[in-house]
Amino acid sequence: MELFYSQDIEGGICRLDHDESGHCIKVLRHRAGDEISVIDGRGTLYRCRITSDSHKGVEAVVVDSTADWGSHPYRLHLAVCPTKNNDRFEWFAEKACEMGFDELSPVIGDHSERRVLKTARVEKILVSAAKQSLKAAVPVVNEPVSVKEFIASEHPAISSETDHSAPLKLIAYCFDDERVPRRSIKEVLNGFEGTDVIVMIGPEGDFSREEAELALQAGFIPVHLGASRLRTETAALAATAATYFHYM
Amino acid sequence: MELFYSQDIEGGICRLDHDESGHCIKVLRHRAGDEISVIDGRGTLYRCRITSDSHKGVEAVVVDSTADWGSHPYRLHLAVCPTKNNDRFEWFAEKACEMGFDELSPVIGDHSERRVLKTARVEKILVSAAKQSLKAAVPVVNEPVSVKEFIASEHPAISSETDHSAPLKLIAYCFDDERVPRRSIKEVLNGFEGTDVIVMIGPEGDFSREEAELALQAGFIPVHLGASRLRTETAALAATAATYFHYM
Repeated sequence: MELFYSQDIEGGICRLDHDESGHCIKVLRHRAGDEISVIDGRGTLYRCRITSDSHKGVEAVVVDSTADWGSHPYRLHLAVCPTKNNDRFEWFAEKACEMGFDELSPVIGDHSERRVLKTARVEKILVSAAKQSLKAAVPVVNEPVSVKEFIASEHPAISSETDHSAPLKLIAYCFDDERVPRRSIKEVLNGFEGTDVIVMIGPEGDFSREEAELALQAGFIPVHLGASRLRTETAALAATAATYFHYM
Repeated sequence: MELFYSQDIEGGICRLDHDESGHCIKVLRHRAGDEISVIDGRGTLYRCRITSDSHKGVEAVVVDSTADWGSHPYRLHLAVCPTKNNDRFEWFAEKACEMGFDELSPVIGDHSERRVLKTARVEKILVSAAKQSLKAAVPVVNEPVSVKEFIASEHPAISSETDHSAPLKLIAYCFDDERVPRRSIKEVLNGFEGTDVIVMIGPEGDFSREEAELALQAGFIPVHLGASRLRTETAALAATAATYFHYM
């Protein structure tokens, strides 16, 4: 199934940007009158008929639309520290999008070696992955913030294990804290009746004790992802898979 | 933790090959008398003391050993069709090894575009991934066979759902067969009391109807990996994650 992406759909008219128009007209050789399927990146699939087949700017009329197309029964917000090697972070973003998640916050930790991330590249990858895995919603990518800023933004502290309408806030760090033992992400998800999940994944050097402490104060629950030592990008995808299978 | 890999450990003597010796002596500057940790790729970790620090062939005496080091509580055999793009297959192999699996059979399907695979490259990646994720066992990589040969090798048909000592044989195809409806891999794993699992993952073009039919005759259970349409390599990793979390 060939999908196009447009952020310019209103009043029953859909316009494709320069790249999508070129792909539609030059590569796929669509012409006026042809029907195309377009996702708006916010969850709706539009069936459209091309009215203007310019390779610089395709215009089409909306024939009908399907909301929540290719959606999943949970809301997953991943806060992940960028990896030293960019490819690994982009790979995780693509795979997580195929399985299904909703929001990505690149976070910079005290122990992060990579302290910058170009979100535009990741956004592009997520659009392709959403198209490829037949989803009309493209995960939102936030501008990078520090781990501490992210934790602060998730205040006030709510124990999501007692209030299931609040998001389940999880932090996966690798050290043991005698006061607050980590449980497996599977066990914690099984005890949660809500559908809104936030998972923080640290950098190669793990979260700092201070970051972990702040997260606990903000109501984050410390979890582990099993006995295996996983790379950052693998841990982020494992957390996505755990959520995906939990709500299956 | 720095791990070395050797297939030449016997009589209390451990020898490193040319590459590992160079890394040990030239890069890490180990000298006679130093202690190093060596995995044999079959599940045992050896603590050894270097007796000869030649960068061409390190020799060390075994101080002690730990069996089943970094092992997992299941046995997972993945039969996966190579992807058009080799990187994607190698990426899956690395990530699956981090989570934990035991045997990889590259299988060539009726609809496979890529019909060859160099197993040597994959083996190299698995050794690094096993070291990186602190496992003493490196998954075995078999020479590629056709999907039909693989199915035949998994005869006779045993319903692993009734005989839990037999491996649970799963095939993940994407079309629907009215006679044998697919269930989710999670549901089927939950109904299985054994620990030996085989999962077949098809190529970009999916398994052929004939391959699916042969698999069913051989006692394979048709499963799906959820609502998302996953690429071959993502499906293979999702199946690994489902198994990893099931036995967590």
